[in-house]
Amino acid sequence: MLVFNQQPIGIFDSGVGGLTVYRALHEKLRGERFVYLGDTARVPYGTKSLATVERYAIENSQFLAARGIKLLVVACNTASALALPKIREKIGVEVVGVIGPGARKAVRLTNDRANPRIGVIATEATVQSHAYSEAIRKASARAEILETPCPLFVSLAEENWTDEPETRSIARKYLQKIVEKNVDALVLGCTHYPILRRVIQKTVGENVMLVDSGEATAEEVENILNEKNLANDHPPKHAGERQLCDDLDHFYVTDAAERFARVAERFLGVKPAKLEAVEVFGLDKLNE
Amino acid sequence: MLVFNQQPIGIFDSGVGGLTVYRALHEKLRGERFVYLGDTARVPYGTKSLATVERYAIENSQFLAARGIKLLVVACNTASALALPKIREKIGVEVVGVIGPGARKAVRLTNDRANPRIGVIATEATVQSHAYSEAIRKASARAEILETPCPLFVSLAEENWTDEPETRSIARKYLQKIVEKNVDALVLGCTHYPILRRVIQKTVGENVMLVDSGEATAEEVENILNEKNLANDHPPKHAGERQLCDDLDHFYVTDAAERFARVAERFLGVKPAKLEAVEVFGLDKLNE
Repeated sequence: MLVFNQQPIGIFDSGVGGLTVYRALHEKLRGERFVYLGDTARVPYGTKSLATVERYAIENSQFLAARGIKLLVVACNTASALALPKIREKIGVEVVGVIGPGARKAVRLTNDRANPRIGVIATEATVQSHAYSEAIRKASARAEILETPCPLFVSLAEENWTDEPETRSIARKYLQKIVEKNVDALVLGCTHYPILRRVIQKTVGENVMLVDSGEATAEEVENILNEKNLANDHPPKHAGERQLCDDLDHFYVTDAAERFARVAERFLGVKPAKLEAVEVFGLDKLNE
Repeated sequence: MLVFNQQPIGIFDSGVGGLTVYRALHEKLRGERFVYLGDTARVPYGTKSLATVERYAIENSQFLAARGIKLLVVACNTASALALPKIREKIGVEVVGVIGPGARKAVRLTNDRANPRIGVIATEATVQSHAYSEAIRKASARAEILETPCPLFVSLAEENWTDEPETRSIARKYLQKIVEKNVDALVLGCTHYPILRRVIQKTVGENVMLVDSGEATAEEVENILNEKNLANDHPPKHAGERQLCDDLDHFYVTDAAERFARVAERFLGVKPAKLEAVEVFGLDKLNE
């Protein structure tokens, strides 16, 4: 497929969590425009089967492809773990997930250690998929890996309880093994977790390098755009002063736009200027 | 529609929460068989729009109707708040939600007070719908009502953190207003909350009467069966010694049966003997 460098970058997530990935991309790539799709009608993906996640991911990708994107970021860990091959089959643009970049960055950051130890925290589903372990193992045969689920972190982030004593106490409980293992780097393997970054850092200690998968993804996207000559060569005016969620970026949700806007404000400090509720179901069937 | 008293009772919920309603029904109605549908592919309903919840609720109801039920219990608070009229339009059996019974029981229990004060705790979506307030107001013009959301309770219940210090601390925070208001009765307006019943009771004090909507619903279902002459007159052998989740009760989920079984075991102490993954989508269209 022919793509042009002025086209926007597409991002989809099962819901609001991918907004932290959008933020990372926005900060790194000031000349780019973004189209974000939050599949709020079918969130969460983590408890769903492979076949279902694949179907949803393809529908979302085709919705964004139809909006003329030049590159797709799958900002959902579950979809990144399960559906990248199928998405690549179906749409003609470059596809970047969040797991590979997060895993590779953790390996890069710890490569100088004699015995690199990498921790991964994520939802139960992502941990059970072992997607991060496999991606880390691919990048480093030496790294010792410890994965552990932190199920309550998602609700705590959505409640915006970023510094409550209960959050600190739950963090100590969940991260106890990570602390005992004395890891060098810790991957935040769920898009909600960067909201709790400070309490996580405090709990594991300042010596542990936190890897935000969203930030790592933004770095890889920047490299791809440069390599493929796809960076926007006509960036918007005043690109350097652009605000998050301004009217150059377009947000779509599959349901409950109001709640999305509310949580977006908690996560990003601002509501999307352009937010629209849409249907993405059955696009796959229409195209066949 | 003609129904027979040996047919099972249908129950649907958006996921696992309705299992507490199943448990209450099972305990009260030992001669009955149950068919439970957990719409785990589309959970949660609380963040979805009216139109979507109605569509899902109708699809679930028709799936259960096709399994020959004599009465339908909508064990999901969101669907009970939003979709009962549409469900009644579409299926020909008696339909009972969980909100009306919970509200009426709270009114009944506090009716002898000079100034009855009723608290309601539920998810953000249920609180915002004011469905409990309206149902309580319908049953009593005098009751003073205080509704408050407890978003983290769902995750805490699914984690089975029923007596952790963090749970006690979060409960104190969420229930502070309820305690200050000195309510006479407190409705557990989310099907997950009975799992945390003990810590909730401890937090609000022993004088507050907790109303489990599931138990209240089981009482109303018993009355309806008796009034309409629909109680099973050929109960299974050894009905009195029946176990939860035995092979006379049939469980269906729309996705991720394994996770459902795991949480069922946490909630009920036992996995369903008969558990099947099914599709319920588009039944509505097929029937038109």
